[in-house]
Formats: sequence, structure tokens, C-alpha cells
Amino acid sequence: MKAYIQRKIDEFQAENKNKARLLISCPDKPGIVAAVSKFLFGKGANIIESNQYSMNPEGGEFFIRIEFECPNLLERQSEIKEDFRQIAEAFSMEWKLMFVAETKKVAIFVSKEQHCLLELLWEWQSGDLMADIALVISNHEDAREFVESLDIPFYHIPANKDIRKQVEEQQLQLLNQYGVDFVILARYMQILTPDFVAELPNRIINIHHSFLPAFVGAKPYERAYNRGVKLIGATSHYVTNDLDEGPIIEQDISRVDHRDDVAKLKKIGQSIERSVLAKAVKWHLEDRVIVHENKTIVF
Amino acid sequence: MKAYIQRKIDEFQAENKNKARLLISCPDKPGIVAAVSKFLFGKGANIIESNQYSMNPEGGEFFIRIEFECPNLLERQSEIKEDFRQIAEAFSMEWKLMFVAETKKVAIFVSKEQHCLLELLWEWQSGDLMADIALVISNHEDAREFVESLDIPFYHIPANKDIRKQVEEQQLQLLNQYGVDFVILARYMQILTPDFVAELPNRIINIHHSFLPAFVGAKPYERAYNRGVKLIGATSHYVTNDLDEGPIIEQDISRVDHRDDVAKLKKIGQSIERSVLAKAVKWHLEDRVIVHENKTIVF
Amino acid sequence: MKAYIQRKIDEFQAENKNKARLLISCPDKPGIVAAVSKFLFGKGANIIESNQYSMNPEGGEFFIRIEFECPNLLERQSEIKEDFRQIAEAFSMEWKLMFVAETKKVAIFVSKEQHCLLELLWEWQSGDLMADIALVISNHEDAREFVESLDIPFYHIPANKDIRKQVEEQQLQLLNQYGVDFVILARYMQILTPDFVAELPNRIINIHHSFLPAFVGAKPYERAYNRGVKLIGATSHYVTNDLDEGPIIEQDISRVDHRDDVAKLKKIGQSIERSVLAKAVKWHLEDRVIVHENKTIVF
Amino acid sequence: MKAYIQRKIDEFQAENKNKARLLISCPDKPGIVAAVSKFLFGKGANIIESNQYSMNPEGGEFFIRIEFECPNLLERQSEIKEDFRQIAEAFSMEWKLMFVAETKKVAIFVSKEQHCLLELLWEWQSGDLMADIALVISNHEDAREFVESLDIPFYHIPANKDIRKQVEEQQLQLLNQYGVDFVILARYMQILTPDFVAELPNRIINIHHSFLPAFVGAKPYERAYNRGVKLIGATSHYVTNDLDEGPIIEQDISRVDHRDDVAKLKKIGQSIERSVLAKAVKWHLEDRVIVHENKTIVF
Repeated sequence: MKAYIQRKIDEFQAENKNKARLLISCPDKPGIVAAVSKFLFGKGANIIESNQYSMNPEGGEFFIRIEFECPNLLERQSEIKEDFRQIAEAFSMEWKLMFVAETKKVAIFVSKEQHCLLELLWEWQSGDLMADIALVISNHEDAREFVESLDIPFYHIPANKDIRKQVEEQQLQLLNQYGVDFVILARYMQILTPDFVAELPNRIINIHHSFLPAFVGAKPYERAYNRGVKLIGATSHYVTNDLDEGPIIEQDISRVDHRDDVAKLKKIGQSIERSVLAKAVKWHLEDRVIVHENKTIVF
Repeated sequence: MKAYIQRKIDEFQAENKNKARLLISCPDKPGIVAAVSKFLFGKGANIIESNQYSMNPEGGEFFIRIEFECPNLLERQSEIKEDFRQIAEAFSMEWKLMFVAETKKVAIFVSKEQHCLLELLWEWQSGDLMADIALVISNHEDAREFVESLDIPFYHIPANKDIRKQVEEQQLQLLNQYGVDFVILARYMQILTPDFVAELPNRIINIHHSFLPAFVGAKPYERAYNRGVKLIGATSHYVTNDLDEGPIIEQDISRVDHRDDVAKLKKIGQSIERSVLAKAVKWHLEDRVIVHENKTIVF
Repeated sequence: MKAYIQRKIDEFQAENKNKARLLISCPDKPGIVAAVSKFLFGKGANIIESNQYSMNPEGGEFFIRIEFECPNLLERQSEIKEDFRQIAEAFSMEWKLMFVAETKKVAIFVSKEQHCLLELLWEWQSGDLMADIALVISNHEDAREFVESLDIPFYHIPANKDIRKQVEEQQLQLLNQYGVDFVILARYMQILTPDFVAELPNRIINIHHSFLPAFVGAKPYERAYNRGVKLIGATSHYVTNDLDEGPIIEQDISRVDHRDDVAKLKKIGQSIERSVLAKAVKWHLEDRVIVHENKTIVF
Repeated sequence: MKAYIQRKIDEFQAENKNKARLLISCPDKPGIVAAVSKFLFGKGANIIESNQYSMNPEGGEFFIRIEFECPNLLERQSEIKEDFRQIAEAFSMEWKLMFVAETKKVAIFVSKEQHCLLELLWEWQSGDLMADIALVISNHEDAREFVESLDIPFYHIPANKDIRKQVEEQQLQLLNQYGVDFVILARYMQILTPDFVAELPNRIINIHHSFLPAFVGAKPYERAYNRGVKLIGATSHYVTNDLDEGPIIEQDISRVDHRDDVAKLKKIGQSIERSVLAKAVKWHLEDRVIVHENKTIVF
């Protein structure tokens, strides 16, 4: 990695060495917040940000995300995790404790169109997307020069539906080798098999070039043009086995009119795709997204 | 009609007695604008606003809308129409000449939810929706009091799928009786038969409570909630025989999040529905919409 | 008040009889959330919604809004308030406990333009603005008919800068007589004196017809037109003694272009004013707004 | 210039060798459109796009932009210009005839912050900003590496208010040397003198980091934060001698809230600045902007 990016990451890790994020889902009942906040207070932690949501105040699901600061956090990781287990069990919680200084490792998959990849790399260079971009995998060579100019490993793995199995094996091996936490499909135009998806549940983020559920599947801009819509959009979602049906993280749209032909729609759309994907990735990196029954809660 | 609304309409007609709008579609070729503008100049007309669009500069379809002012227009209506016929034939034009002072007669159909009806009546009372609201037809009684308080005739025609034919006969008879130019479905929750639609081609405006083509059909807010979308929308379109598939006039959306349950989505959506329908109706009243192959050009 | 509106209010009060909102501002330090949530848990309360914000995580100001449900709340009002005082003192809190069933009493002030008043009354009739509209005061007669048709008392108090003192005395007497909690200036085009403002600190909500701080003062649409802006807006804020300088609650804009003359800007602007004021008023009614040093935190 | 960019420009010029744009401002009177369209028809031209605007239908100013295609255009440039002069005189027109294949030469000025420069260079590399970027001038060295990697000449001219005269002389000499048509200030944080501005009337495009006229001058994000606005924005305008008072080409905004500190506002703002400046530059390159009395008409 380029020295100046490494420096930004080092600074970030130093600044955030005492910060963590606690994400909890559990059945709603009185006393959850009291128990968790008492626990954190007992550990000497100060709550920086806290968001919660009760899906149905009387007897539904409860979700909370707490970002806190705690002295000597990195040395006390296992102690805190261990001690929290008791509360978690009492309230039947599903929970995760993420340490901010442990920047996530990500692989970016891309095909020919590079605007989404470029946006991510740009945000990354300017220090606004705090991840460790471990590698880029593409079924085309186009992105190699730019990716390698940033000292990021680039792998060209040609792909088509006949060799899907071998391709995915190669990809998974690389993800393993680099210790990747999650994958971004930055306009990667190959369908993933259920086996691949099962390896990374809610850890593959895709950008689809329509405001889902409109125009599921191929060629959304052509179909938007033919339908004569007055808005086009983009959707970022976690990948599941149902094509374009995974939990939506973010969507946005732009206004178009009768003068915009398909080429113009694509151009306008690229700008939405870039910003929607970048937002979704940042929220994922900041542990702001909880998936619940094919929907997301974004705190 | 209430006296103060009648006064606004009278004023509008007096102010616009010399104004007309010419709408043309024809195969594109050089000389169209030259011929039309020479014709209008020859009639002493001044062009106030002109918009044009070539679908495909080399040999596609050409569309133009010209709003002009011409002395003594109302007395010269048939002369101008007659003389323009020659140009129209030379260029194989489909065309309409609309006189602004001839305000359109409209019927509004509504069911139980009244927010769209109220928005239209409000805009109408304030003089911003310059139409002659001839009557309101509903399959419920709810709107009667408010409609009649404005001295607009209200007809309650109960409807369901078993009596559709009789209901539509009654409705068509009323439309005839009042000399209605077009119909607004302001959340009218009954399906219209092909026979009814055929009577009013591109002259029935509907508001659908989703950003089409997402959530075609019933219960779009419930389905938007279940899909976990981050945007909800509304679409105004001309009615054709394919449910929710007619030419789109206008769409808009609003941002929502995980906290918004179905009731909240409906509430947020009502506000979009109101403004989207009002815009579409105004554009139709100002003869700004040309339909071409299931799409609209909005000038 | 009309019977059907009274019925909606009665229903609302019955449904919410056990709900309250606790708003707190205090210096940030560890343990606040733990103490408050333990207190509420001890009272048998269930937290429905909770939002917090630390202005500066290390030693700044801390803000929290908690909406909770508590059995037999209305009988236990003074007990809960009394018991909370201890915690409040320990953390040097400024705090308010609002009982949802106690709907706020509001007076609306209006001049000639009625679009904002109409929007509020419409939202109110449909049950989406849960307040007790005690009276409407205007320096013109225009709104009387519609206001009185809803059985809301209407007072015509002519006003100009020479008789400001007497006018405000009359107004304050009416506010007292009706036990008004806060005032909405729904395009009331008279300047209020410091004495009047002092009577209702952060309890007068104004709508200004520009995106402040652009176009402070008179005739913003004319000035927007002359400046050639591509966006116009509206701003809702609490009134202070500095004209148009009070804490901003909500703002929004709409796109305009060179074809829009002043009349068109006003028309487009009215729609923004309506929605911005309605949002601000709802947030105030739901106790979502905390004022801190001439800014608002909107939870 | 990099070979692949040169190739895109060559292709663009070949595709557009017969295209031109005619921009006209003149006093409104009947017959203008008839005369101009007859003239173009006589030259064998086909109108591709036409937009017009009458500032005041009865006796105001009239503006029109016509994009047309004409066989053998480049050989007939002077003939067409010569012959049009007669019509121009008859209607007292101010006019420009721009040949699309003659791509404009531009200089970009930048200081330390590079996001706007990067956006422009990116759009340029992808062929969406069809200009000849002749050189980049900066009062800092930061951008050198990236600019030179694209084979664009980079000039570092340190600047401060004491040496403004010499600096501008150097800059003007470079603009002359490279035959520059217009200048983009892509976050160039030095004030230009009236002499410099006078050399390039309506040919210097600036991006200001606020929705003007709010926050004219320095540190708009800090002031936006202090004022507690709920929207921040950016404005692209032509530079005149009145600081931040020149004709506005484009503006946009983004929603912010109490949690966004100054650093966050700047980050959100960068994204608006990038897109607003890119839009304004594209419209300028496509000859879509007419300046009239400190306002723009954007066709």
C-alpha cells in the first residue's frame, strides 16, 4: 500500500484505539438499556453515540448500536467480551462487539465499468473510507493499471457461466489468503453461486443500477428508457441467493426526462451508483447496519 | 360554482383570450420550424414559449409545442385552423390547436381517501388549477359534504366488480351530460374496463401510490415495507388497458427508513401523491404533455 | 371544535395516556444513560424511542430524548417528577417531562396569505397534527370564514407599527385567556416586540420564505429573483429578538430556473413553506426539538 | 496529452464536424424565429435542438439557442457567419456561432484542496467533459504529480495578496501562450483583481462552497455550522468584480443535521461542490449559458 495511505490508516488506528461498537438484537422488554448502560459504566466506558429501535414497542424485536470509548480497550478486549456474555444471555441477545482500530479487510470485484471502483479508491485515498483494501479481482484487465498504481494487488480471473465453479474456487482461495472480511461488487457483472454467497452471509455488498424492486435483473437502463420513467436510481444491498432481492442498505434516484436516451441515462446513473455504493460501504465499515429478516436497520 | 372561483375563471379567460397552443408530432425533416414560424408570423402571432424535441436527429420523430398570442384570436379560430391544415399535410403532422381561454371540463373520481381530491380542490380554489371541475363521482359518500360546499355536483355511485358494467354506463352518461374533456382518478380504487378506457384515450389521469414500475397493483405501501426500500414514491400516468402500465407523466419519491411502519409510509406517501398528481394535472391542462408510444414528452 | 376532531383528540389521549417524553441537556460525563435508564426501569417504564447526542464526546454538552410508556402514568405524574429530581441534580440537568396525553394549546397568527394556515388546519383535521388549536388571530379578515367553519375562535386585530404595543397587549391577553402553550406565525407579516418575544421563549415558531441566512428580511422572493438563484427555499425557526436569526428547526428548497418570474417563485415557494412549517410544528408538538445556543437539536 | 484522451477528442471532433450552436439575445418582436429558421433551412441545416425564452412576452428581451447540423460546415464557416450578419442586424441581435468540433481550451486554477480538480480530470478522462485542458496553475505543489501523470502541464505559481500583480501577469501570460478560452477556479483560494477579471468577461467559472447569497466570503462551512442551518450547499458562478456576486450558473444543497460538525460539513460539501462545478463547466462547454444582467439563462 502507498505510504501516505498507510500513514492515514495508522493515524486512524491510533486515534481510535479505545473505541468500540456494540450491536445488539434481542426480544424487546424493559431493562435492556439499563443493563447495558450499567455494564458499560462499570467498565469505565463513555458512550459516544447510541441509537436504538423497537420494531414493535409491545413485544417485538429490539435493536441497539452503542459506540463507546473505554480506557486501555485493546488490552481488555477479551475481558469485556467475556463479562458481557452474561447480560447477553439474560436477554437472549444476538450481539457483536467491534473494535474500531481493527480496520476491516475488503476485496473489490469489478468488471469492465470502473466508475464505482474509482469512487471507492478515491474515497479511500482521501482517508474517508477507512478500510484495508486487500485486493481487487476482475474478469477483465481494464482496471489493472490504476489499481496497481496504488500498490493494491490486482487479480485477473476471466469468468463466464461455464467455468463459474472454478472461478469462485480461485476467488475464495484469494479471499482466504488475504483474510478478507467482506466483498464489494463494484459493478461485477457475474452471478454468484449459492455456495459462494453462503461463505459470506451479509458480507457481500452489491450495487444494482436501478431503484429496486423496479428493473430487477439485466439491462435496467434500457428497460427504464423503454418504460419512460421520470426517475432513475441505484440500490446497494447485501447479496443473497435471490437475485437483486437481498436486504437494501441504501437507494437514491435522479430526475430524468424524455430527452435522455439510454446512453444519457447510464451516464446520469453512474453518478448515483457511485454515491449510493460509497455510502453503503461506509455504513458497513462503521458497523451501522443490522440485517433483520431481509431488511436493514441503518443506525 | 362558487362566485369567487367563477370570477377567477372569468378573469383568466379574459386575460388569455388571444392565446393558443399548437402541439405537433411528425417525422423529422428540415424546414418544419421554418414553415410553422413563418405561418404564425403571417397571422400576426407572437410566440410566447416554444419547446421542441427530435427523438433521433437523423430521421426520427419530431415534437413541438408553441404557445402564441394572436390578435382577435377567438374570432379567427376556424380561419387559423383551416389555413394550418396545408402545412400539416405537407409534413404529415399530427397536431392539435388548443385555445387557452377554453378551459377544460374535468370529472374527478375518488374513493375513500380524500387527500388527492382535497389537494386538487384547494389548488383550484386558489386559482392555480385552471379547469372547470364539472363534477365529482365517488363510490363512497365521504367526500360529499366538502365537494358540495364548493357548489360542485357530487354523485355517489356504489361500485364493485360485479356491477362494473352498469356503474361505468352511469359514469359515462354523466361525463357526456356534463361535456367532460378528461377524468382524474384521485385515488379511485376501482379497475376500469377496456370499454371505458377506450372512450377517453390519454384523457384519464391516474395517481399510483408507488414509483412505477415498482409495486404495480394492490397494496404498494405494504409491499414497500416488506421489501425494506429506502425510498417510497408516487406516479401519475395516463390510464391504458394494462394496469399501471400507461404513459408516465410525473413521478417523485421521499426518503424513508426502518422506523417507518406501513401507516407512516402511507402518511409520507400521501404528501407525494398530492404533489405528483397536481403537477401532472396542471401539465395536462396547459397542454404540455404529448404521448408517443406509451411514453410522454412533457414540454 | 368540530365533533369529529374532538373525537380524534379523545382517541389520541386515550391511546397515549401512559406515554411521556423526557428531554435532558447536561454536561457530558459517564453514567448519565445508566442512571436514567435504571430510574425508568425502576418505575416499570418501557423505553419506546431514545435519541442522544454528545456535542463533543470529551467534556461537551450531552442531550437525550426518551419516549417511554409507564403503567398508570397520569396518576403518577408528580411522583415520577419528584423522584427524578435527585438524578437531575446529580448530573446538573436541564430537563422537561412531557405527558403525551396533555395535548398542547396553540394560537396561530396569520396575515393575508393563507396557504400555511390552510396546511396546518388540514393536517389538523386529518388527525396528523395533534394539538388543541385554541384560536386564530389575524390582522386581516380573510381567514375568518374558513377558521370559524371549523369552530375555532377567530380574532381580527388590525395591526401596524404605530399601534404595536396595544395590539400585542390584546394578543397576550387572548393567549392568557385561552391558556396557550405556543404560537405559530403562519405568514404573520408583523414584527413582534422584544416584550412579546420574552413572554414566549422558544415557543414562537415562524416560517420565513427563504433558505436563511440568505434573504433575511422583507421581500425574499423578489430578491431571489433579482439575484438569479437556482434554488429557493423556506425556513422554520423559533423567534428571537434578532429578526430571522432565531434557532432554525427545518429548511427545504426547490429548484427554479430563469423562466420563473417573481409570481412563479412565490407559488413554488408556498408549497415549500407549507411543508417546512408543518414539519417544524409537528416536531415541536412531539417534543423533538431542543434549543441550545441558538441552534436546534432535532431528535 | 495521454493518447487515449486525444483519441476521444479526435473521435468527438469527427462526429461533430457538421454541428454548430447559435446563441442569440435581442429585443423580442414577432418574426425572429421565422427569420432564423428560414435562414438555417436555406443553408440546408437541420435543427437538432432549440430552446428559447422571452423574458417578458410583451416587449422584453428574447433569447434563443439553436443546435443544428449542416453539410460541409467547417468549410462554410465564414459564409454562414457572413450571411447571418444581415438578419442579426435587422433584429439588433447579440449573437455567437460556435462550432462544436472546435473544442474549447481551458486552464484550471487550484489551491490545496483537490476534490474539484480531481472530479474535472476524472470526467475528462472518461470523455464526459469535452475540452482541451491546456494547463493547471496552482499556488501549491500538491496537485503536480497527478496532473503531470495525465501529461497536462502544471505550473506552480506561489501567490499571496502582496504579489498579486506579478502573479496575475504570469498567469495571463500563460493563458495567452496556451490560447486559453476560459478559466475554471476549482477551489482556487486567491482573490482576482479587476484587471484580471476584465481580461476574461464571463469566462471565469468559480465554485463557492455555500448556497449563495448565504455565506458570501470566507469560511462558509464554519459559518453554516455556527448558524445551525439544516442544509448546506455550493454555487457555481461566473466571476465578476463583486466577490461571490457574479451570475449563478448552478447550485445544489445537501441535508445536514446537528450531529455534523465543521469537518463533516466540509466532507459533505465537497461532494456537492464536485457535482455542481462539473455541471456548470459542461453547460459552459456546450454553450448552454447566456448571461443577461448578472443572471444566467441555462438552456
